[in-house]
Order: sequence, then C-alpha cells, then structure tokens
Amino acid sequence: MAVETKARKFLNNPADLVAESLAGLAAAHPDLLRYDAAAKIVVSKGAPKQGKVALISGGGSGHEPLHGGFVGIGMLDAACPGEVFTSPVPDQMLAATKAVDGGAGVVHIVKNYTGDVLNFKMAAEDAADDGIKVTSIVIDDDVAVQDSLYTAGRRGVGATVLAEKIAGAAAAGGADLATVSDTVKRVNERARSFGVALSSCIPPASGKPIFDLPEGQVELGIGIHGEPGRRRESLGSASDVVDVMVEAVLSDLKPAKGARLLAFVNGMGGTPLIELYLLYHEVDRKLRAAGLEPVRNLIGSYITSLEMAGASLTVLELDDELIRLWDAPVHTPALRWGI
Amino acid sequence: MAVETKARKFLNNPADLVAESLAGLAAAHPDLLRYDAAAKIVVSKGAPKQGKVALISGGGSGHEPLHGGFVGIGMLDAACPGEVFTSPVPDQMLAATKAVDGGAGVVHIVKNYTGDVLNFKMAAEDAADDGIKVTSIVIDDDVAVQDSLYTAGRRGVGATVLAEKIAGAAAAGGADLATVSDTVKRVNERARSFGVALSSCIPPASGKPIFDLPEGQVELGIGIHGEPGRRRESLGSASDVVDVMVEAVLSDLKPAKGARLLAFVNGMGGTPLIELYLLYHEVDRKLRAAGLEPVRNLIGSYITSLEMAGASLTVLELDDELIRLWDAPVHTPALRWGI
Repeated sequence: MAVETKARKFLNNPADLVAESLAGLAAAHPDLLRYDAAAKIVVSKGAPKQGKVALISGGGSGHEPLHGGFVGIGMLDAACPGEVFTSPVPDQMLAATKAVDGGAGVVHIVKNYTGDVLNFKMAAEDAADDGIKVTSIVIDDDVAVQDSLYTAGRRGVGATVLAEKIAGAAAAGGADLATVSDTVKRVNERARSFGVALSSCIPPASGKPIFDLPEGQVELGIGIHGEPGRRRESLGSASDVVDVMVEAVLSDLKPAKGARLLAFVNGMGGTPLIELYLLYHEVDRKLRAAGLEPVRNLIGSYITSLEMAGASLTVLELDDELIRLWDAPVHTPALRWGI
Repeated sequence: MAVETKARKFLNNPADLVAESLAGLAAAHPDLLRYDAAAKIVVSKGAPKQGKVALISGGGSGHEPLHGGFVGIGMLDAACPGEVFTSPVPDQMLAATKAVDGGAGVVHIVKNYTGDVLNFKMAAEDAADDGIKVTSIVIDDDVAVQDSLYTAGRRGVGATVLAEKIAGAAAAGGADLATVSDTVKRVNERARSFGVALSSCIPPASGKPIFDLPEGQVELGIGIHGEPGRRRESLGSASDVVDVMVEAVLSDLKPAKGARLLAFVNGMGGTPLIELYLLYHEVDRKLRAAGLEPVRNLIGSYITSLEMAGASLTVLELDDELIRLWDAPVHTPALRWGI
C-alpha cells in the first residue's frame, strides 16, 4: 500500500487513523465495548442498562485514551470520537445517547471547546425531543487562559478524566440523574489544571507541527490542541516547571489548609513515564510543603495531544464521598482497579 | 536551580533523574512499595512474605515502567534499577534478594544483556553463600538479531513483562521455587518479540540522540537501547510495518495452527496510544489471517526506551495454565486487575 509517510508515525491512510485505531480498541477489548463504525461511536458492552444513569463524552480524537479508552464498567457508557482535533457531530452524540439510555437519563460530559459545546447542545435537544432525559455538564478546569483558540472561557482538560471516573462510579452505584450530574459539576468546581509543552504535536493529516517551539523552550499553559499558553520561556529545571504548575493551580483553586487532594500528573503523549514520576516527586513535595495532603494520585498519559512532549497537572480537592467514588471499582481499557 | 537543559525533557540534575523518579514512584504508591535509596532498590511493601517464592528483576533505567512499576502484589517483589541504560551492580541485586527472601527461594528474572547477566550471576552466588536459594532465568525473546551491541545471543525485551506477570501469579499462588522458575522459562520459550523505531531516544546525560534516523525512515529490529536492528528502510504503511513484525515473530515461534496467543503491542515511549491501537488492529487481523487466535492482549508503553518513537510486538503462545496465571489478580503501579 503506497502511503505518503509523514512525520514519525505509524499510519495507513491518515484519513483512516481514527476509525482503524477504534477498530483496534474494539478488537482488543470485546469484553468491554464495541465500535459502531456506521454511527462512529464506542459503546459499552453492558449498555443500555435499565435503570442506570448513563454517561457519555466525546470530542476530537488525538487525546487517547480519552474518551474511548474510558468506556466500560464504572466510567463511560459511550464515547463519540471526532476526527483528530475536530468536534464530533450531533448525530454521533444522539446515536450514543440513544444507545446507552436505560430510562434513567443520560449525562453528557462536555469539554469546553466551542464546537463540542454547540454540537452536544444540539444532540441534547434532539434527544429530549425523543423523550430521553439529558443533562449536559461543561468541564472548564484549565486555569492557564481565559478564552483561547477554540474556546470561550476556560478550556476543559484533565478534570474530564476525573469527572468521568467519579461520576461513573456514582452512576454504577445507582445514583439518579440529578445526583450524577451534580457529581460531575462538583468535580469540575473542585479541580484545576495547568499544562506545559516541550514540543508541538503533529496532526497526521498535515504532517506538520502546529507551532514552532525550539529545543530548550517551554510553553507554559499550553492547551491540548497546541493552543497558546500564558508565555514561553527558557526551559528550567523540572522543579522550576512544577513550581509554575502548582502555583497556577493552587492560586486559583484556593484549597482549604490541610485539604486532601488527588494529584494527577498527566503526560501529553511524547513524554515518558520516567519523567512523569520525576514530576510527581516534585508535585508531591510542593503540595505537602503548602500544607496540603495528596492522598490519591494518577500518573500517566490519560489526556494527550498526539505525540506532544509535555505534561499537565490537575489537582482535585477531595472529600469523603469523592474519595469513595474514586476508589470504587472500574474496568475500562485505560483505567482499571477492583475488578 | 541552574540546570543545563538538554533536549525536550523534564529534568533537574540529569544525574539525579533515576533516584528522583523512583522517589516519585514510592511517593505515589506507598501502599505497594518503598524505595530504598541507600541500597538503590524498589521493594514490595509485603516483602518478605514467609513461604512465598520471591521474584526480582532489574536492569538499566530508561525502560519505565519496567521494572519498578511492576513491583507490588502478584508480580515482582523487588526491582534493581541501574542508571539509564546501565546495568545495576551486584550489591543492589544481593540487597534485593535478601530483602524479599521469605525462605522459599528467590527467582532472578534477567534480560539478556551481558552486564545484567554477569552482575546477576555474581549476586546469585553471593546470595547462595548466605544460604538463600536462588535461581536465575535469562530472557532472550528478541528475534531481530543474534549478538548485538550489549548482548551475546538474543536480547531480552517484551517477554520480560509477560514472564514477570505470569510467574508472579504462580508465586502468589504458592508454587515452589522449581515451578516458578520453570514458569519463567516456559514464558521465555513460548514468546518472541520484534521492535521497530521511528526516532532515536536521547539519554539525559548526553542530551544527544544515540543514532541518527531521518524522518521517513524506520529501523527494523531495533533494541531498547538503540542497538541496531536488521535493516533500515523507507517507512511504509502501518500495515507494511506490522507485516514485517508478525512475519519475524511467527517464523521463529512457529506456533501450532489455531494456537491461542497473547499479543503485546508495546510503545517505546514516544509513540502515542492512538497509534498503538492502530498497530493492534493490524496485528489482530494478521494473526487471525494466519489461523491463530489472539485471546489475550496488552497494549501500551510497558518496556520503553526513554522517549523513542517506535513499537514492539511480542507474541506468547498460551496454554490453559498460562491463561489462568495471566488472568490472576495483579496490583502494581503499571499493571493492575482483579484487585
């Protein structure tokens, strides 16, 4: 097969990347989910479950495992993947909503990007016309910038993963639509994120970096589609970088003294685990030095930007119920415990 | 802190990377393991467990989560991390062996690199002098090349992860030293691997790529330290690359018609999950087309080469017992299910 190879990527036809990757996800995890190629949605094998509130999310691809990798038991019931960095369309969201509705209603978890918000809104209205109860919660945890390339207000990033896990546990435990929706809202309100990049990602269709970032520079406050951050500067030590991340997050979140936190150190796709744990070492120390208690953590590449080198920090202020829901069993391709 | 920043990496002093990253691992997972900074070993919190055969492994760092990320319950009891791409010393291995011995003996799982093999041999002799029963199994699953930069015979790569999980389950289930050792051997004998690279990794101490691989080229048969492979050629489609990987592995393994397989698509550190699932899609199809049954799989970056872009395929021919042991509960930072 003749392919114009672009960048350092495994690809067939770049236009088929998303569909082929999702087919691979389904082939690998037939016990958990199926990929409906016609509707372009990933659906939990157990859906619809009568009487259970269902959760769906979606957005542009290129952020894997988000969202398809979080479909399964105790997290999402379906995901709507768009093309790379492109919003899914309302038809996908409507199909997913119908596929998972078990009569108790469906929660749409929407990252705050203009296209996603508009399309999920249309899908929710169409679903309501079909008699399905839908609530829609927008995630906007990124403190880096107010309004940016694809967003009015703050962008939605790492808190999405935490909201999907925690609200997914609430739904699995039998909570009603209002409670599950409120759980998503609470996670969003109690979480803040800040990301940094050391390189640009390279969208497969163009084969070209989105932005130019010379070696030795860091973009502070980057988005997950290469949207500009707060500023660019010479890359200092990991400790320096974490100082910026922790300060940005805590000054906005303003957690109570002694607050119990979940600290989520997320890789952007091209940064290896040895560096993420180095970052976590700094994060853990600096949070404790600030009089806070990181009692839960998540470290790995869970909301990525293709092969971008970089990382983000998300801090969630916990309470007893959020801890209980975080610890509850989950079984998805990307996040699993207790099952 | 003034740091000479090198490449696109999060670093403090490069000389401290391994120790700081391991301290981060321990800070994140105090329920599972501790990092003994003096002895330079990672030890399961539950070790030593009287009457249980213990498993240890080790090798150069830069391959995370291997091995420290596999210490916990149902897998490794301890890991001995060397500096980046540098064998640990016998003192580390001896300290780990003593720390985990519960009287039933200790199995050393050794990737076939000359330094690792020699140092583990010395440690095993010293441990025997101290009255500890030790067996040592060398993993050499990489079919790409016979003898290479750091190895006499074949290199040990992806099968190491599978052997640690499967033999760890045998040990957790109460198997004796001979049985656990035999389980490691069986996994090694029934597994084959082949890796490819799209970029070089960059060791933090030098800040320079190990080898030069122009964009649009692929190194077929790469090792996990940038050791040369079989050949270099223009990068074709993902399907073409997987053809080479599958052919290399199957022609050597020669599985029985209809054999049940575990297919492990591993990322080298800089390749994102969307591409790994694209590769798995190809692997799954091609194995089935060859009359084989991929009944288990593992997809992710589990044995890496810093931030190298690339992937490897490991195929393990299963039987009922290996399936049972693979499915058994495991709880480590990097691999977890059933607990």
